[in-house]
Amino acid sequence: MEPIMSKRAAADLVVAARIRQGLSWADIAGELGAPLVWTTAALLGQHPMTPEQARTVCGLLGLDHAVAESLALQPARGADPALMSDPTIYRFVEAISVYGPALKELIHEEFGDGIMSAINFKVDFARRPDPDGDRVVITFDGKFLDYRW
Amino acid sequence: MEPIMSKRAAADLVVAARIRQGLSWADIAGELGAPLVWTTAALLGQHPMTPEQARTVCGLLGLDHAVAESLALQPARGADPALMSDPTIYRFVEAISVYGPALKELIHEEFGDGIMSAINFKVDFARRPDPDGDRVVITFDGKFLDYRW
Amino acid sequence: MEPIMSKRAAADLVVAARIRQGLSWADIAGELGAPLVWTTAALLGQHPMTPEQARTVCGLLGLDHAVAESLALQPARGADPALMSDPTIYRFVEAISVYGPALKELIHEEFGDGIMSAINFKVDFARRPDPDGDRVVITFDGKFLDYRW
Amino acid sequence: MEPIMSKRAAADLVVAARIRQGLSWADIAGELGAPLVWTTAALLGQHPMTPEQARTVCGLLGLDHAVAESLALQPARGADPALMSDPTIYRFVEAISVYGPALKELIHEEFGDGIMSAINFKVDFARRPDPDGDRVVITFDGKFLDYRW
Amino acid sequence: MEPIMSKRAAADLVVAARIRQGLSWADIAGELGAPLVWTTAALLGQHPMTPEQARTVCGLLGLDHAVAESLALQPARGADPALMSDPTIYRFVEAISVYGPALKELIHEEFGDGIMSAINFKVDFARRPDPDGDRVVITFDGKFLDYRW
Amino acid sequence: MEPIMSKRAAADLVVAARIRQGLSWADIAGELGAPLVWTTAALLGQHPMTPEQARTVCGLLGLDHAVAESLALQPARGADPALMSDPTIYRFVEAISVYGPALKELIHEEFGDGIMSAINFKVDFARRPDPDGDRVVITFDGKFLDYRW
Amino acid sequence: MEPIMSKRAAADLVVAARIRQGLSWADIAGELGAPLVWTTAALLGQHPMTPEQARTVCGLLGLDHAVAESLALQPARGADPALMSDPTIYRFVEAISVYGPALKELIHEEFGDGIMSAINFKVDFARRPDPDGDRVVITFDGKFLDYRW
Amino acid sequence: MEPIMSKRAAADLVVAARIRQGLSWADIAGELGAPLVWTTAALLGQHPMTPEQARTVCGLLGLDHAVAESLALQPARGADPALMSDPTIYRFVEAISVYGPALKELIHEEFGDGIMSAINFKVDFARRPDPDGDRVVITFDGKFLDYRW
Amino acid sequence: MEPIMSKRAAADLVVAARIRQGLSWADIAGELGAPLVWTTAALLGQHPMTPEQARTVCGLLGLDHAVAESLALQPARGADPALMSDPTIYRFVEAISVYGPALKELIHEEFGDGIMSAINFKVDFARRPDPDGDRVVITFDGKFLDYRW
Amino acid sequence: MEPIMSKRAAADLVVAARIRQGLSWADIAGELGAPLVWTTAALLGQHPMTPEQARTVCGLLGLDHAVAESLALQPARGADPALMSDPTIYRFVEAISVYGPALKELIHEEFGDGIMSAINFKVDFARRPDPDGDRVVITFDGKFLDYRW
Repeated sequence: MEPIMSKRAAADLVVAARIRQGLSWADIAGELGAPLVWTTAALLGQHPMTPEQARTVCGLLGLDHAVAESLALQPARGADPALMSDPTIYRFVEAISVYGPALKELIHEEFGDGIMSAINFKVDFARRPDPDGDRVVITFDGKFLDYRW
Repeated sequence: MEPIMSKRAAADLVVAARIRQGLSWADIAGELGAPLVWTTAALLGQHPMTPEQARTVCGLLGLDHAVAESLALQPARGADPALMSDPTIYRFVEAISVYGPALKELIHEEFGDGIMSAINFKVDFARRPDPDGDRVVITFDGKFLDYRW
Repeated sequence: MEPIMSKRAAADLVVAARIRQGLSWADIAGELGAPLVWTTAALLGQHPMTPEQARTVCGLLGLDHAVAESLALQPARGADPALMSDPTIYRFVEAISVYGPALKELIHEEFGDGIMSAINFKVDFARRPDPDGDRVVITFDGKFLDYRW
Repeated sequence: MEPIMSKRAAADLVVAARIRQGLSWADIAGELGAPLVWTTAALLGQHPMTPEQARTVCGLLGLDHAVAESLALQPARGADPALMSDPTIYRFVEAISVYGPALKELIHEEFGDGIMSAINFKVDFARRPDPDGDRVVITFDGKFLDYRW
Repeated sequence: MEPIMSKRAAADLVVAARIRQGLSWADIAGELGAPLVWTTAALLGQHPMTPEQARTVCGLLGLDHAVAESLALQPARGADPALMSDPTIYRFVEAISVYGPALKELIHEEFGDGIMSAINFKVDFARRPDPDGDRVVITFDGKFLDYRW
Repeated sequence: MEPIMSKRAAADLVVAARIRQGLSWADIAGELGAPLVWTTAALLGQHPMTPEQARTVCGLLGLDHAVAESLALQPARGADPALMSDPTIYRFVEAISVYGPALKELIHEEFGDGIMSAINFKVDFARRPDPDGDRVVITFDGKFLDYRW
Repeated sequence: MEPIMSKRAAADLVVAARIRQGLSWADIAGELGAPLVWTTAALLGQHPMTPEQARTVCGLLGLDHAVAESLALQPARGADPALMSDPTIYRFVEAISVYGPALKELIHEEFGDGIMSAINFKVDFARRPDPDGDRVVITFDGKFLDYRW
Repeated sequence: MEPIMSKRAAADLVVAARIRQGLSWADIAGELGAPLVWTTAALLGQHPMTPEQARTVCGLLGLDHAVAESLALQPARGADPALMSDPTIYRFVEAISVYGPALKELIHEEFGDGIMSAINFKVDFARRPDPDGDRVVITFDGKFLDYRW
Repeated sequence: MEPIMSKRAAADLVVAARIRQGLSWADIAGELGAPLVWTTAALLGQHPMTPEQARTVCGLLGLDHAVAESLALQPARGADPALMSDPTIYRFVEAISVYGPALKELIHEEFGDGIMSAINFKVDFARRPDPDGDRVVITFDGKFLDYRW
Repeated sequence: MEPIMSKRAAADLVVAARIRQGLSWADIAGELGAPLVWTTAALLGQHPMTPEQARTVCGLLGLDHAVAESLALQPARGADPALMSDPTIYRFVEAISVYGPALKELIHEEFGDGIMSAINFKVDFARRPDPDGDRVVITFDGKFLDYRW
């Protein structure tokens, strides 16, 4: 009996296969018919895939069943804290530190006492051309949940 | 000689005046002709206002010159870490922990080695009606900056 | 112009008035017609009260308008971390450390991938007589939210 | 001489076998005749099993004696702190931060100076149907212990 | 309405009065007819006193009613973490780090799976003469509590 | 050339052999003619054994020379911090947080400015029968050391 | 007897006076005949000024003797850690995290085993025009110190 | 399928080969025709190399394709925090703590509200002869980015 | 009743009086007939003075009885952790990090299993002229204490 | 190609060989003709040895070339933080916390604004016989470096 391959080991193999085969995350998402950010997050270990999705990815990337079994496993979510200081990720951390309290004020003003769900939630990623330099546009879209006793 | 009022003390007075006069953040932003999230963040101490903006806000809210002087001061940015565990703000922290590594992958795939600027950057806040419950929609829009030696 | 009294200062005055007048938390909750745990948490600064509720409490306890204004303010939620090591509170922290992973497994087994909401959520407190020593019975009751893109 | 298999390694094998054989935690608890939350926590390494219980589980799951020996070992309890930020577990952490001080007040009001034991203690997990969305109901039931010199 | 004096402020006044009047902790404990370690801990803010005990202490030390009211308040227990590195207290921390795992083994061997209660618990302090240098003898005496579901 | 086996690896083997052979910590201490708490702590890696003691233990438990060599090595003392939150050990941590400042006061009152040594120090473990439930009795006995320039 | 005004309070007054009088840091440095970065750091509390320098600055800014006394005091150096996450300062922290190990390699390759002194050390600040956007140029210039026994 | 070799493992091999072949970092940078600090940082894992650069380095150092594949991988940037206390690196950390707030003031005075980019950024390393002892001269040169909504 | 002045407030007044009167630490130590490092540490709050010593110091410095009462109080020892990163103090911290494990080896080799006492301990400070630059010479002199059960 | 053996692995082998051959640190230092504390620190990984020194040590201890190569490598200095709480090392940490601020005052009084170098620095270790118990005498001897712009 072997333990199930860890999500991290599976992600390392997905990344290696993706690069060696010259496939983009968008190619994989297209093959799955699933959203781009969701697919990338799931393959990095943040969402469970259905067994069918896992098999499709492993077929596309030439990975064996042990990887598919891991991709279908329920994850313990959250990134390694060391990653939070990578500059590309840190800019999001900084933006939350600078704008988080303002967004809290505006959520309460517009919706009342509650939160933007991070569960009934989706994230969109886009490139917006701009003559001054193209822009990264990230949209967080979550259901408002009011504190309700 | 008195020191300049701290940004935190000024924000506490702005919040008190805003509530007692029944003004919304949107009312203040409208009066200033400035974006909503920017205005809210600036009044909470995250951006310096021009002296004119500061005077306008203090006139509208009935606050004296010491508050205006503080609002125009260059800030040291970043929220009190204790605020990061407020549930309304924490959901953003959690979203970055779950989706940050995926966004990093997609930025690199689409743009190459670099970051989304948090300086040449704007944040939009909106309510999107939905029969299943209205949704909070936050858009981060930052210029891509490539690592360039 | 005075800033709004902090939630902590308001809670300190509520606690002092409650003790000096010999009122229980249950007495206050009864007067408000609100649930016991909710009322206690709100008066300690974790939920905003409606202005009417705040006035009722301050009338009952002989506290002035500044306290009522604070009780009605939108809070930044979460306890002082130092309180988490008080033995009475720490036992809850310990229980989550010991049983949290098991509860995660059971939530996923029974409901699928998602969480128990801490927002659409209520907590009940009861005493259960037991010949071996009476028992504290705490019930967490939260809506299941599935990860839904 | 080999060291005893770690509780973590044993739990990984239990999880793998459970999934591959299509057994639920409830199936295993039923086979043992033990409570559901206790059984799940014990198999994840938080309680020692009796040798008989350990043998029964390993027989059911097709795991060898080394796993049973580990399951019977006295544990060092407590979850990996990294797990505390998994969203499904974090909601419990958040609830304790928001409601812990209120529960402390109510325990002292009802019982006097003391604690809810986390040792003479049980946890119940249930699903409560609700037209608005089914609910997770967790009950903590611990003996009151008064500070007694 | 004044908030109740903090336990720390009350302890500071007790310490000042004790020193200025040349009373020992033992003198106060004797006057109260209460155990020495309990009395000292209570006056430093770790246990609530009965109103009678609080009045007795304040009468003895010439402190006013506000101190007595604070001494009778239910405390949030636990020392300021900065105190843990005072050398006199740190030696206890070090002893737990060096001998804690051994004591855990011996508690389990002798009593089974459970803990020494820190609630149904008393601490004794004594001086033991020794020709090689007198010794500090501290006894922890707590009820064994077995994990009982 | 092999490095010396780590104290942790040696302790894991001692624990495994002890359990498989049905020996208690008291049996081993008896065989060594050494105090019970000292022996347990030493075998868990907190004290060096003499080569003779190490050989005796390894002979009794059927462990080879590499274990004996490790048991005789000078240790770097102190437990893994993760262990400090195991409930059985945490109760000692909590007791020091609640009673440490009181013990400091009493040491200074009785002995003057100084500490209880944690080096010229012994710990005793006992079970005291009690009709209300047997009790764990731990005695710390350390030489007083005065601050002496 | 008053304690000496803290370096932080003195810096707050210097900043307030500088802004209200429309003086730049360069103006003050020019008046002192001292380097720009040194002057700014000293006035923010990181270097002691000579009594003459302190008097000159206070004369220029209209501050009284208590400020001058504080400016001449020997400082405890180092910034408030909260400032390290201000975005303008954080970029330096990030640069050290990304390039620090490379600079260590190059110092050892060029100079041998040792360090760049941060004591026999100066920092220069300049603006370099660039058609692509002007650049901030910071030069660290420290004496090499070799490990020398 | 093998995962891609970690950046750390690749850097360890580059360092070993460099030392055994007696090549300096400057030799490698020269061979690549790339800047010295950039090359060193890239080989330590902080920048991705182009496949051509990676092949050139591996050819020069006699390292195989697996190393080249790793060197071309997009990194997660940032040093192991333990390295920050190495004395040679710590002096930079100390300099930022002492001079960071002054540099922030000067950037704002000279350029307005914004930052020195750490992305559009280069670092230069030089030795400056000095009769008093040669000096390490490090230049940070980054584009100014103004806060622009 | 006033609480006793804190050790920190007393130290601030001692420092202010010392500077304003142009007295050195050595002058004060000479007046007391006490060792230099001990006197300085005691006045900074790390050792209790006898009432006579406290009166002598306050007489010399023109400080009132409240300061003397504080200087005679038993301290909670240990510096504010923020001070540990002041460069002058940090060099000691760094030296312990670099040489601490070596000193541990040598203490065990020379004396056996035990420690250098930090209680029966003195510190000497001296200046040693050196043509290459005068040197700071600090001597730690503590009684060896062997682990003795 | 193998990476260079880590300093830690090399130190573990040096320690094992030293113990098995019955050599003291002083024996090795004598053979090298190098100072005792320097030699011990270098072999524990804190200083690079010259290739000749490394060969001499490996010859004496019967260790192979891979160890010598590691001993000659430039180290990243600093001990594992977990070691800082070993009681023998912790007493130095405690002494710095208690006496560090006093030493800072005395360095500034005697030498002016600056530091004791930890680079141009040596440490001496000695045993001083004392009828009351022999003493550990550690001398830190570092060049004074004044803040010099």
